[in-house]
Amino acid sequence: MSVDGITHHISSRYNEELQRLVRSVLGMGGLVERQLSVAIGGIGEPDDEVIVRVARDEQRVNQMEREIDEECSRILATRSPAASDLRLILTILKTITDLERIGDEGEKIAAIAVRLAARERPRNRYRELRTLGDLVIGMLRDSLDAFARHDTELAISVLRRDRIVDEEYESIHRQSITFMMEDPRSIRRALDIMWVVRSLERIGDHSKNICEYLIYLIHGRDVRHTQIDEIEREISALGEPHPAHDWPHGDEPPGITLAAAPAVLAARPGAAAE
Amino acid sequence: MSVDGITHHISSRYNEELQRLVRSVLGMGGLVERQLSVAIGGIGEPDDEVIVRVARDEQRVNQMEREIDEECSRILATRSPAASDLRLILTILKTITDLERIGDEGEKIAAIAVRLAARERPRNRYRELRTLGDLVIGMLRDSLDAFARHDTELAISVLRRDRIVDEEYESIHRQSITFMMEDPRSIRRALDIMWVVRSLERIGDHSKNICEYLIYLIHGRDVRHTQIDEIEREISALGEPHPAHDWPHGDEPPGITLAAAPAVLAARPGAAAE
Repeated sequence: MSVDGITHHISSRYNEELQRLVRSVLGMGGLVERQLSVAIGGIGEPDDEVIVRVARDEQRVNQMEREIDEECSRILATRSPAASDLRLILTILKTITDLERIGDEGEKIAAIAVRLAARERPRNRYRELRTLGDLVIGMLRDSLDAFARHDTELAISVLRRDRIVDEEYESIHRQSITFMMEDPRSIRRALDIMWVVRSLERIGDHSKNICEYLIYLIHGRDVRHTQIDEIEREISALGEPHPAHDWPHGDEPPGITLAAAPAVLAARPGAAAE
Repeated sequence: MSVDGITHHISSRYNEELQRLVRSVLGMGGLVERQLSVAIGGIGEPDDEVIVRVARDEQRVNQMEREIDEECSRILATRSPAASDLRLILTILKTITDLERIGDEGEKIAAIAVRLAARERPRNRYRELRTLGDLVIGMLRDSLDAFARHDTELAISVLRRDRIVDEEYESIHRQSITFMMEDPRSIRRALDIMWVVRSLERIGDHSKNICEYLIYLIHGRDVRHTQIDEIEREISALGEPHPAHDWPHGDEPPGITLAAAPAVLAARPGAAAE
């Protein structure tokens, strides 16, 4: 085998490792998404199975976090990645922490969801909670899709939605306080609703974090703690993505990069429910 | 200069970079600690300055997170760290995320702290809140000290304290519900107390995370999602720390490693208040 051949061979194996890593992150994300759908779907439903299912997924999510973490360490140690590959690994390390914490929130929601079923139901049967839940699941799903497709616009749309979540959160919060004051017997239920809403708001924040990391990955720009309008201005001023942004390490042109992505997306557990 | 001389020169510059990085993390941690002390000290005190001070520190904390993040990327790209140096960088990357989120919680506490001052005070003047606050600040401080001194025992003691925080959290929570039910006029105040307690509980979790990363750094063992008793068994079964655990990269014996640590600790803003 020629030296060129060997180099190509190594580089394509390296590329495969990165692709596999990306698929694992998307797989973990899909699992968290499913966990969340089950938890939110279970709000007010008298079905203990919800807790069991969410807890089972939680264990798997934790295990995947460890595995991906280890794989990132291994690649850092053996491949000494630079430029966009390094940013990809760093993005993944941060992303999985947020995914794992979304899973934690999902578990909390599941526990409260089932507890709510034991209480007298409000007339609207938790409609606002489900609406907010769907909004937040959408943010998580889109942040994963944005990650898979390297889609800055989708990522920015997730950042924008965070404000809607905050407004919705404030509104349900105020409403719950009113209910409590009008009828002290509703205090426990109103508190449970508040905890769920707080968890959902956190999940929105975590999804937003994932999108911010992604913008760093694509544009090499750290946009945490930056106002959304400023982010948009910055990104459009940057024009084309950062030269070293290619998806796993620069063999393919942007746009049609990560050939595995559509298949990966279809294979994600969450996709089946769509 | 001989080849040996050059190698030594490079290695000692590298070592300096790692030491500087560790000092930055401790500096950031000290700032977060101060932020938290101000926020908790402000509970029920009618002093708007608290919000201003905490917000000012928050900006600096965010900036430090970015700087340390960038420095980690730079070292990864230019030094291709391996073994314990790599673990150090990964530990730092995770630690600063938790520190930054502790800062966020501090900001939330400060806002509520001042709001509580405008309400009628309970007879005990928020004694339980301050007690829990001190417990949690102690956890943060000890997790930073454990990090600075590579002290597994101290790290484990922080993990143990998390259970006390959870119990305290549950107790204040139950008490608040009782107050609400007895006197609906106390609902808003009780809710504010609940939010503070929830934030404190989160800060305990973040401190625990930092200690878990530290155990990974010292022993090469990922102990997240592991029961505390199991962690202690594992650590004592491992006996001596992981062979590649030395503190920045293996020039010094364990125990007296990180010569700069005591000075660094003394220089931390939080230390002055001790």
